[in-house]
Amino acid sequence: MLEHLTTKIGARLSGSEGAAKAVEWTNKIMKEYGFDTVYLQPVMVPHWIRGKKEIGQVVRGSKKSDRVALTICALGGSIGTGPNGVVAQVVEVKSFEELAKLGKEAVQGKIVFYNQPMDPTLISTFAAYGKAGFQRRSGASEAAKYGAVGVIVRSLGVNIEDYPHTGSMSYAPNIPKIPAVAISTNHAEILSAMLLEKRDLKFYFETYCETLPDVQSYNVVGELKGSEFPNEIIAVGGHLDSWDLAQGAHDDGTGCVQSIEVLRVFKTMGYKPKRTLRAVMFMNEENGLRGGLEYANQAKLKNENHIAAMESDAGGFTPRGFSMTGTPEVKNKIKNWKVLLEPYGLTDFNREGGGADIGPLAAQGVTLIGFLPDSQRYFNYHHTPEDTFDKVDKRELELGAGAMAALLYLIDRYGLNQVLR
Amino acid sequence: MLEHLTTKIGARLSGSEGAAKAVEWTNKIMKEYGFDTVYLQPVMVPHWIRGKKEIGQVVRGSKKSDRVALTICALGGSIGTGPNGVVAQVVEVKSFEELAKLGKEAVQGKIVFYNQPMDPTLISTFAAYGKAGFQRRSGASEAAKYGAVGVIVRSLGVNIEDYPHTGSMSYAPNIPKIPAVAISTNHAEILSAMLLEKRDLKFYFETYCETLPDVQSYNVVGELKGSEFPNEIIAVGGHLDSWDLAQGAHDDGTGCVQSIEVLRVFKTMGYKPKRTLRAVMFMNEENGLRGGLEYANQAKLKNENHIAAMESDAGGFTPRGFSMTGTPEVKNKIKNWKVLLEPYGLTDFNREGGGADIGPLAAQGVTLIGFLPDSQRYFNYHHTPEDTFDKVDKRELELGAGAMAALLYLIDRYGLNQVLR
Repeated sequence: MLEHLTTKIGARLSGSEGAAKAVEWTNKIMKEYGFDTVYLQPVMVPHWIRGKKEIGQVVRGSKKSDRVALTICALGGSIGTGPNGVVAQVVEVKSFEELAKLGKEAVQGKIVFYNQPMDPTLISTFAAYGKAGFQRRSGASEAAKYGAVGVIVRSLGVNIEDYPHTGSMSYAPNIPKIPAVAISTNHAEILSAMLLEKRDLKFYFETYCETLPDVQSYNVVGELKGSEFPNEIIAVGGHLDSWDLAQGAHDDGTGCVQSIEVLRVFKTMGYKPKRTLRAVMFMNEENGLRGGLEYANQAKLKNENHIAAMESDAGGFTPRGFSMTGTPEVKNKIKNWKVLLEPYGLTDFNREGGGADIGPLAAQGVTLIGFLPDSQRYFNYHHTPEDTFDKVDKRELELGAGAMAALLYLIDRYGLNQVLR
Repeated sequence: MLEHLTTKIGARLSGSEGAAKAVEWTNKIMKEYGFDTVYLQPVMVPHWIRGKKEIGQVVRGSKKSDRVALTICALGGSIGTGPNGVVAQVVEVKSFEELAKLGKEAVQGKIVFYNQPMDPTLISTFAAYGKAGFQRRSGASEAAKYGAVGVIVRSLGVNIEDYPHTGSMSYAPNIPKIPAVAISTNHAEILSAMLLEKRDLKFYFETYCETLPDVQSYNVVGELKGSEFPNEIIAVGGHLDSWDLAQGAHDDGTGCVQSIEVLRVFKTMGYKPKRTLRAVMFMNEENGLRGGLEYANQAKLKNENHIAAMESDAGGFTPRGFSMTGTPEVKNKIKNWKVLLEPYGLTDFNREGGGADIGPLAAQGVTLIGFLPDSQRYFNYHHTPEDTFDKVDKRELELGAGAMAALLYLIDRYGLNQVLR
């Protein structure tokens, strides 16, 4: 499944042909596996496109030979510069506080270069990602407040690499929109070193991205109907969309195929779930979350009773455990199963969490569960051209699907209320 | 360090030029890091060489076009066939029991093809390796008992791959020595399918390996002298030799550089160990264990008091915990530190174990500790041409060194006797 989704279909940014093909194919494959019900759930999604390849150059003087190419890519959601590009002096900062201290005087008319690395001392790379993410998510508007004309953001990667990491950014209301790009970690280091040498260095970049009108798309849902409590729904999902730079293997082809695999395995082994098990391929996690929002919206409109929702969106690596959001009673019930799961290397049950796509279900009191694979290699690939099929280890991927199936089996069999049925 | 050891020095089979260079270089680098004492410990090692590249062919008929090349490699320690090769019908078995049932009548004059895959249902790939290892280690002599003229052994790999896994085998006394080769898992499947179609299929193979006279080599030892209890030694090591097919990255370049790194880190941060910390690069783990045996022998001769020995020889992957061999009291003491190590993802403290090289110290009552990284990808690379530098993730490698340093710090600081000093 993963090979087809990543190498035959490939990149699947919302609104793209790849995303449409992925909808069609996952719908088809879940039908072929004989799931009881398979259907599309319509949702309108944003349609951002990268356009022509970006150009990024350090400008050390007026001659052509004074220009040094550095690797950048537009951030998702950014406006483009168009063919005229942006050229300006560069101000390097590591935080919004530093930016505020510099103020309008130092920033006006300049390009702000955010260069805060991910904190390597945090064992969970997701914690480091969370801590450094401000630059990419809201760096542009924050810089525009002080009159900046563009931003360059250090890629959110753990290693020093030559490829940039894209990802979504958004503009705050009532602040001028300025173009935003990510720079590879290696070139962030180089740019920083060049700035130490020559403070009035200029940077030039050209981007052709733009936001087109919204496009009709879909979440894809496949169900095994519950034999005893069909109205109690247990959802398990990943997101079908990916960034445009690669094949969307670890983010999040793996989560999608693992979710389908859980149902496929139960069906193949003849296990008839008591409750309704639902595999959900969410659309548009990366730049809008429209699929997750619409799924929760429909659940509410239809008065559906989700007893739990699990998401796999942290890569297809060796399983380590599950994060949870729910009542203390329900969390304790799940933690009591730890003894059954520990022999399979599942030991991490203490984190609060869930997943972006299932997040909107929390308002309906649904217990959220996040599948936690080992996080160490995720940000080598996340949102980069390197997120390809060959980076996924077959056995690690399968063990993840097995771990998810094991916990979902327990939830299906024993429910999540306090008294065992 | 790992980049130099694997890409500049490369393969390091005992007796080879690579092994000699690795001795020289690790000796030099530990001196450069300013360790208190760095020295070579002489040991004679076996010198097996592969010689000319192996040829393996299925022979379906008498024409040249009836021959199909399959990927094989000689097993370490095997005799070679020389230019005349071996050609015979193939008998496939999955166990020694099956072989015994077939008996002399069915086996005499034939090539025995051991085709027992590693058990994928065992979560620890090392457990699966242990279970399937009989074929490679003693398959040749077992088959020779019934008159076989050669053996082909399914590679000890988790996946279906195109490259073979070498590894050591040995001959039982007083049984004719017959040549032994490993076949890639993919080609084992193909050969097995061909045998189903044509039971009298022949196989031809040519190997040029041979065992030369023993060679002078060395363990390499670097020490930080203990400030309070200099006579209490804590050893940490990996093995410097590797198989000849690749760079010996995960097996066991990573263990070597992690061991040096532990001492380097302590020295760099100004931590003065109470006890003597010793990094040991063992020679000849792969095909003789002469380094490990000599190290224990010298420790005994010199009346050295090792309070613990740790080995890293399971790859440079995300750390998961430590295995142990020792008294219940000492093991409990280490397990009581689990609470300090768990926040770093170290949760696995329940396995019995240690390491091949430190194993001989057990007879002196030394507590043995095995560093346990995640095992899932190890047998993708182990003993294959794929065990190269690029397969090691920098962050995973460093976290491993950090985990080892953390436990060694606790042992140094608090000792391993029952009462805290």
